[in-house]
Amino acid sequence: MSTIEHSDELTASEFDRGIAVGKRPDETGVYDGHLDPGWQVGAGINGGLLLAVAGNALSHGFSADGHPDPLSISAYYLSAARSGPAGLRTETVRRGRTMSTGSVSMFQEEEDGRPVERLRALATYGDLDLLPPDVHTTATPPDLPPLEECVGTDLAPDGFKNSAPLLDRFDLRFDPSCVGWAVGEPSGRGLIQGWLRLADGREPDPLMLLFAVDALPPVTFDLGLPGWAPTLELTAHIRCKPAPGWLRVVHSTRNFAGGFLEEDAEVWDSAGRLVAQSRQLARAPRS
Amino acid sequence: MSTIEHSDELTASEFDRGIAVGKRPDETGVYDGHLDPGWQVGAGINGGLLLAVAGNALSHGFSADGHPDPLSISAYYLSAARSGPAGLRTETVRRGRTMSTGSVSMFQEEEDGRPVERLRALATYGDLDLLPPDVHTTATPPDLPPLEECVGTDLAPDGFKNSAPLLDRFDLRFDPSCVGWAVGEPSGRGLIQGWLRLADGREPDPLMLLFAVDALPPVTFDLGLPGWAPTLELTAHIRCKPAPGWLRVVHSTRNFAGGFLEEDAEVWDSAGRLVAQSRQLARAPRS
Repeated sequence: MSTIEHSDELTASEFDRGIAVGKRPDETGVYDGHLDPGWQVGAGINGGLLLAVAGNALSHGFSADGHPDPLSISAYYLSAARSGPAGLRTETVRRGRTMSTGSVSMFQEEEDGRPVERLRALATYGDLDLLPPDVHTTATPPDLPPLEECVGTDLAPDGFKNSAPLLDRFDLRFDPSCVGWAVGEPSGRGLIQGWLRLADGREPDPLMLLFAVDALPPVTFDLGLPGWAPTLELTAHIRCKPAPGWLRVVHSTRNFAGGFLEEDAEVWDSAGRLVAQSRQLARAPRS
Repeated sequence: MSTIEHSDELTASEFDRGIAVGKRPDETGVYDGHLDPGWQVGAGINGGLLLAVAGNALSHGFSADGHPDPLSISAYYLSAARSGPAGLRTETVRRGRTMSTGSVSMFQEEEDGRPVERLRALATYGDLDLLPPDVHTTATPPDLPPLEECVGTDLAPDGFKNSAPLLDRFDLRFDPSCVGWAVGEPSGRGLIQGWLRLADGREPDPLMLLFAVDALPPVTFDLGLPGWAPTLELTAHIRCKPAPGWLRVVHSTRNFAGGFLEEDAEVWDSAGRLVAQSRQLARAPRS
């Protein structure tokens, strides 16, 4: 898909190509990426993909310090990103022994050449392989029917499918109890969950989890609000490296008020571990 | 407590004085604050107070645009803040019609005059009074015993009280079912909740909520881990202006793994509305 030259290894994975960035030789900490239209949904590029691109730029910078993995990243979405070139300006905020914190700004040029910022993020990176293996959790994996009883995105309304080339990038199987919205019968619970993996078979890793936390349709679909719910802010915590295989993703909201809602995501790996948690503040669709 | 000159009105409230900032006349977007030792807990100044100070600096900058209230703020804590002067460097990232996004850095000078950054935050501000009044929430207020059946912080272990002048800044009444840790019998549920108001009687507002989300003892106390749990990142969403009166605050965690835990906070006002939600990623105390 992308044809830019970059320092990431060229792989068969469209996800790896989608998040690839190349370091500008003449500017410290500045990278170039290319947003492929295949990751578009509605009028812009999917927010999870943007997070993974921004996260990849920071990962390049922090890998030299032995801190390749995002532990926490908080992104503020400023304007809708379009397909095409995107620049990424990174800054090291603090370089520590076990963790580093940085800032990244993604920008694109308008037709008149003026740069417009798409998102700004702060993040702390470390090495997930070095964390102690202890787990004491009261969180329980989602109660999902087996994969073969879940339903694919081909059930989605035509209007949604046509505006979302993104849907071809992954294999997503919804819990049937959470897709009433596809046939005009939203449950009203504010819950969408399902099985997720990349269509190209690339296994999950921390950067892929940054995409996974914002890959599902907005949970407002399940509240009977079919429009888009633009993200104002999204913070993701990556809690451990995911095992290969299908992920289970849960999106839920509890508090819809004043034209905003929070959307919580949990990602569970095939080994039954809670590998990522995120929360975003989104603007409610206009009803 | 603070005696610096600043542009905030001098009030009788120690909280207002604690978060007061003054604009440097010679540097655009730079403010000076003073961290009073009264807000200290353990070796540093309380993270919620730092968030409110940083949030106040951004509020000063965005008020001229009609966006005085934090809607979302994400802070990365970089080093422990000490009592004394603190500088705040703000930057406008995006100025919009209904919302503005900015960045703020808090720094203090070391003895050799070298500035050291304490926290960096991104935030989006707007006007909470202009949000539509609709609420569709499935969240329910915490099940707290009446105020008179709850227990004050005088029950806290001496070691905790002696290291926390902060405790004198507010009136906090714990749910008795959540304070077993004070007598060596933590519940293990990862839950601490109680009633909260400022000791000086100042009523809650959006900036006070930034303090409230990180005012309680770490939820790890209830897991039998009495040490400090330093915050790596904290994001707070302010969902509406709180009504006057006591707040109800719930801190909980579900996933303690790899030496980190998330701590979720909910703040409910006297009118029964969920006024703030926050999540932080904290480092687990060394056991």
